[in-house]
Amino acid sequence: MPMVKMFEYKEASPEARAVFDDIMATRKIDWVNNFWKVLASHLPTLKRIRENVKQVMAPGALDPLVKEMIYVAVSVTNNCEYCIHSHTAAARAKGMSDAQLAELLAVVGLANDTNRLANGYRVPVDPQFIPEHS
Amino acid sequence: MPMVKMFEYKEASPEARAVFDDIMATRKIDWVNNFWKVLASHLPTLKRIRENVKQVMAPGALDPLVKEMIYVAVSVTNNCEYCIHSHTAAARAKGMSDAQLAELLAVVGLANDTNRLANGYRVPVDPQFIPEHS
Amino acid sequence: MPMVKMFEYKEASPEARAVFDDIMATRKIDWVNNFWKVLASHLPTLKRIRENVKQVMAPGALDPLVKEMIYVAVSVTNNCEYCIHSHTAAARAKGMSDAQLAELLAVVGLANDTNRLANGYRVPVDPQFIPEHS
Amino acid sequence: MPMVKMFEYKEASPEARAVFDDIMATRKIDWVNNFWKVLASHLPTLKRIRENVKQVMAPGALDPLVKEMIYVAVSVTNNCEYCIHSHTAAARAKGMSDAQLAELLAVVGLANDTNRLANGYRVPVDPQFIPEHS
Amino acid sequence: MPMVKMFEYKEASPEARAVFDDIMATRKIDWVNNFWKVLASHLPTLKRIRENVKQVMAPGALDPLVKEMIYVAVSVTNNCEYCIHSHTAAARAKGMSDAQLAELLAVVGLANDTNRLANGYRVPVDPQFIPEHS
Amino acid sequence: MPMVKMFEYKEASPEARAVFDDIMATRKIDWVNNFWKVLASHLPTLKRIRENVKQVMAPGALDPLVKEMIYVAVSVTNNCEYCIHSHTAAARAKGMSDAQLAELLAVVGLANDTNRLANGYRVPVDPQFIPEHS
Repeated sequence: MPMVKMFEYKEASPEARAVFDDIMATRKIDWVNNFWKVLASHLPTLKRIRENVKQVMAPGALDPLVKEMIYVAVSVTNNCEYCIHSHTAAARAKGMSDAQLAELLAVVGLANDTNRLANGYRVPVDPQFIPEHS
Repeated sequence: MPMVKMFEYKEASPEARAVFDDIMATRKIDWVNNFWKVLASHLPTLKRIRENVKQVMAPGALDPLVKEMIYVAVSVTNNCEYCIHSHTAAARAKGMSDAQLAELLAVVGLANDTNRLANGYRVPVDPQFIPEHS
Repeated sequence: MPMVKMFEYKEASPEARAVFDDIMATRKIDWVNNFWKVLASHLPTLKRIRENVKQVMAPGALDPLVKEMIYVAVSVTNNCEYCIHSHTAAARAKGMSDAQLAELLAVVGLANDTNRLANGYRVPVDPQFIPEHS
Repeated sequence: MPMVKMFEYKEASPEARAVFDDIMATRKIDWVNNFWKVLASHLPTLKRIRENVKQVMAPGALDPLVKEMIYVAVSVTNNCEYCIHSHTAAARAKGMSDAQLAELLAVVGLANDTNRLANGYRVPVDPQFIPEHS
Repeated sequence: MPMVKMFEYKEASPEARAVFDDIMATRKIDWVNNFWKVLASHLPTLKRIRENVKQVMAPGALDPLVKEMIYVAVSVTNNCEYCIHSHTAAARAKGMSDAQLAELLAVVGLANDTNRLANGYRVPVDPQFIPEHS
Repeated sequence: MPMVKMFEYKEASPEARAVFDDIMATRKIDWVNNFWKVLASHLPTLKRIRENVKQVMAPGALDPLVKEMIYVAVSVTNNCEYCIHSHTAAARAKGMSDAQLAELLAVVGLANDTNRLANGYRVPVDPQFIPEHS
């Protein structure tokens, strides 16, 4: 059960519906997932987060599928169940194969492992890794 | 200061040197970073982690640069200073541009944000996101 | 299913009942939530944690509602489902409105985002932020 | 050392300067902290994050000082050194006393403790805590 | 529902069955837990993780029960539900008593608390704690 | 630089000195580490945390060295630099060998890895792992 009321399209305000319409049009689908229905309980958050997602996840220097896989990597590290499901589904919709998912999770696991070895041993940063800026 | 002695090449055992040699040959560089010098204090860990990194980070269904960027995403989420530096440097060495780094960090930040919105609102997983297996 | 037996009031030892009585009296309610029933499986933990909560959550320099909202912020960041539910309920009982919850979660989300931008870019701490102590 | 070049006011583009000017005007100070100088390396992020901070941290249903303290609570839980320093300083600038900081950190610590007790014991959520929505 | 198909023994490839057989033989049980059935969807991960677990969890300088309790401590800190259940069960199978579980969780909780006090107050590391290496 | 003034013995109040004396007597050393000097800035926290540490870390069903290693495991997972240093030093003072530290960190790393594999694949908890309570 969510903490707040989830707004179905019919119940949503015109401003919330405009966001829902935009999500469906952008993704070429005819439904909106629960995350947005929950955010519709607070219009400033709904609009602000939608705007962030559109800007950040748009094609740019990185491919949209790579961006989705990075989203999955973060969500798995934080163990956000909803986000793991929604972004794994989104990555699959953008073409992620079973083998790519398996390699993605293998990297996420290993990174979480070596992060702790580096932390626990207090490994000093090599000077070669320090970036130089003019 | 690391928790244990870091082993320079000259001080390392023949088995540790073999791992160092393999790292330098694979990466086509003539030095070994501190992470491995620290792990050389415990040979089973040095060999085991080296084997894991070789297998997991090898080209496969995912591009090596994508794997490095996933590594950075995890390291930033966990705030492992050493790992952020070493894997950002590795990603740059594999061709990551400034714009790609900026977009990578933007996705990592946003994912950490929406992970908490989904958690805090306890958003229920949409049935459409549940994978089906025969 | 919890990891250990949950102790209902009737089954609890006199010492555990005394803690339960204190909780109900302090909160002016006639039931005890599962967290305490679980801790009743280990009396030293039950008494110690109860004492900590009483001291830390008592009115002081901070308002009890502010303290509850800070508790929610931490629980959401860690994704502790039980704690999110219990402390959001406690904050509502102390007067938190829907709009306050929405703003609280917006801050929590944004803080988790900018935490990663600061980490990933390795932003150096400004000298102006370093506190001075005589 | 930051991962990218930090842009001082003189070096920044007109669009970045406009953001810097807005920060200084809003806060009534004559300097900009390093976080923004780093973000100035990627204009879309600089503008987007600035917009988010302005919206989320503005006075609303929650007091600005309460919002800053929530920011500190998240930053401490994640151990983001930069964010702990910058938001503790911001909270002090908004009036947080030593006693309030001490109580804030006590709540953050305790919440991190009981989050793990609830997780480790797998305490089931009490039905009384589940919100009802019409 | 898992993200991928779980492979029962009958459905598994000969190589996956060999790993399953090894798990059952080592543990002297006649079933394999879901974690391995899921990993059987990607043979390189199945074999690699099995090899890691065997090496790391084998009796050595630390007792196997101590190793299991450390595994529980990490899993509770990260709130990995599956891992909390599987490793608490494994620790119990190796002899962990109710009182030991209670003390383990008390330490985990307290460590998570004081970790945040140390972070939030930015306590400087005492020179006495810095290890010396010749 | 810590967030608050650190109190040396000479500057501390009689009540804080009593806590310092107790720490030195219990540990049979003639100095107090920075963590306590910082907490001395807020007497209720100093006394409360000292009391918690004494109770939780005392010999009981678990050996004090095992408790210290669990403390290290949590601190490494959270990457609390101060805590990693202070509790690794404490574990060494209680007899932890280099080999034990290496095995401890190997378990911590691996647990952080498999935690993410279990999370990412959404492995369902086996019914065999669910504890039964009469």
